[in-house]
Amino acid sequence: MAISDLIDQTVKDISGLDQAAMTAARARQDQLTKPPGSLGRLEELSIRLAGIFGEATPRISKKTVVLVAGDHGVVAEGISAYPQDVTPAMVMNFLGGGAAINVLAGHAGAEIVVIDAGVAADLPDHPQLRPVKIGRGTDNIAVGPAMSREQAIQCLEVGIETAREQIAAGVDLLACGDMGIGNTTPSSAIASVITGAAPDITTGRGTGLDDAGLAHKAEVVQRSIDTNKPDAKNGLDVLIKVGGFEIGVLAGVYLGAAAGNRAVVVDGFISGAAALIAHAIAPDAAHSFIASHQSVEPGHRISLSHMGLEPLLDLGMRLGEGSGAALCMPIIEAAALCLSDMTTFAEAGVSEKIEDDEEASS
Amino acid sequence: MAISDLIDQTVKDISGLDQAAMTAARARQDQLTKPPGSLGRLEELSIRLAGIFGEATPRISKKTVVLVAGDHGVVAEGISAYPQDVTPAMVMNFLGGGAAINVLAGHAGAEIVVIDAGVAADLPDHPQLRPVKIGRGTDNIAVGPAMSREQAIQCLEVGIETAREQIAAGVDLLACGDMGIGNTTPSSAIASVITGAAPDITTGRGTGLDDAGLAHKAEVVQRSIDTNKPDAKNGLDVLIKVGGFEIGVLAGVYLGAAAGNRAVVVDGFISGAAALIAHAIAPDAAHSFIASHQSVEPGHRISLSHMGLEPLLDLGMRLGEGSGAALCMPIIEAAALCLSDMTTFAEAGVSEKIEDDEEASS
Repeated sequence: MAISDLIDQTVKDISGLDQAAMTAARARQDQLTKPPGSLGRLEELSIRLAGIFGEATPRISKKTVVLVAGDHGVVAEGISAYPQDVTPAMVMNFLGGGAAINVLAGHAGAEIVVIDAGVAADLPDHPQLRPVKIGRGTDNIAVGPAMSREQAIQCLEVGIETAREQIAAGVDLLACGDMGIGNTTPSSAIASVITGAAPDITTGRGTGLDDAGLAHKAEVVQRSIDTNKPDAKNGLDVLIKVGGFEIGVLAGVYLGAAAGNRAVVVDGFISGAAALIAHAIAPDAAHSFIASHQSVEPGHRISLSHMGLEPLLDLGMRLGEGSGAALCMPIIEAAALCLSDMTTFAEAGVSEKIEDDEEASS
Repeated sequence: MAISDLIDQTVKDISGLDQAAMTAARARQDQLTKPPGSLGRLEELSIRLAGIFGEATPRISKKTVVLVAGDHGVVAEGISAYPQDVTPAMVMNFLGGGAAINVLAGHAGAEIVVIDAGVAADLPDHPQLRPVKIGRGTDNIAVGPAMSREQAIQCLEVGIETAREQIAAGVDLLACGDMGIGNTTPSSAIASVITGAAPDITTGRGTGLDDAGLAHKAEVVQRSIDTNKPDAKNGLDVLIKVGGFEIGVLAGVYLGAAAGNRAVVVDGFISGAAALIAHAIAPDAAHSFIASHQSVEPGHRISLSHMGLEPLLDLGMRLGEGSGAALCMPIIEAAALCLSDMTTFAEAGVSEKIEDDEEASS
């Protein structure tokens, strides 16, 4: 189904994992100076990175967190514990360097690209802020679609172009972070539509709802689905009907990263909902996704499982901003480094096993 | 019970967590620009670091992996898939920089101190190797004690002195890594004696035993306990009877780190067995321990639970060398950095909650 030239071409450019590179990486893992398999998921991860990059010993040199902000008309339904003006305030905090993502990305050696995809407030000019402003907050999904088809296409295109630009600048590891008061509500709607799980399963407490707030929020999610009837097989339709501007841009980043044969780290629930939309548009894109952490939000594991992803960390986090993804970046780099930089048994002159030793001495 | 002047003084120097520092850290966490608790275990960890260091905003600047090697007479029972000459070969690999721990410690920005506590082979002089050589491998624990009382005391003292020296040099985060063919067998014996879990529960496949090998190994562990009858309440006695030279030195490192108010990272099963001995000698020492990862070895979780520790990572690793501890170091640093470097709501001018906002506007 044609969407736009850029999106269609991007989807066409997404291929599966490079099997030859993975075979070479697997063979090298078994020759490294350690019992086979003893680095556990670091070994699997290194082999998948080889498949994504199409290189037997992938190297990660530059890293970027794409941090996208947007507001949500559905806050009119009273689904968030925080007021909407926290969105622009937190964007200013990102630009000032004081948020968790600033600390965590800095620690991981990653740059941050901050995009205003649709904050419902004027933000001052700032050299680190990209004022895309696809709208001033989405419309209220409890009463109609979040955005127009044109806006949804623009979201995806901005994300694709951002990923392309980063990859052209030498970035090999991207991460998707979000900011937007109310954005767990559209994320639950997306997760329910695409995975088929009921809203009372995919809806969580967000930034801190009580039991009554949680029940109300699940009802709003259900209403947004009933009202809009999104087509679960059509990622663009889901984005239009129950998405968000930041979610759409992030979906584009996933597609662009996958098309560019680079790894992209899924953060928490909202980042995962964006990944679900990218996956609905191009299922093979998920080969390039690395799930960083298991969010406390209950819909996150369901979303990740739907894409065949298993998170690396489970630390009870629920912040968003790309915080879990940035925290995980050093682990992803470590997996690649063990594959490329450890010596082999032959190089080190270490016996591989008693059987080999006996053979050698017999 | 007096052991030696150095050990007795070290045990005396181990105190509980600094409650005032923890209270200050907890208060600061709740003022940082994020929903309270949204950084999950990073928040708990930062508060514990505050308690260990006795500082409201602890900073980690220098890191060291203490990597200790030793051999085990119990290999005569055929309990390892690898020949004993792998121990010195791997020590040479550590010195050459090609092992997993070299890659992972380098990635984490940590130095490595390599100690030959009791390898059963001559090792060449090397500027990076500390040739302590408490023995040439332990005696076979299936037929008698691993070592003499004097050797066990020397192990602990070497470890304490190493930790003291590192802390004096400004190291704030230590990690305990091991190398020694056969050392999961004494570790299972230690875990069974100290936690009370049966050998068939604490015994695992080590570097790669098959089912018959596993059953035989559990029987050897049981025999070593029956033969030696270690006193579970006496950490020194457990070390003498069913320990290892590298395990004893690491137990000393744990004690020295705790006495010096610095955090020390537990790696996998052997590192955990050493921690159990330190914990048996001085239960309060465990306040300074941070469990890095859940090893595949079944006795590891039992050991960690016994000390009230919950691992941060669960990545199916089973290598030792301090590999899981080094992999975890960036996460521990991230926890401290979020606490110290994020801005507060007041500093950033961000609303804390809708309730506050309503109060402010009413």
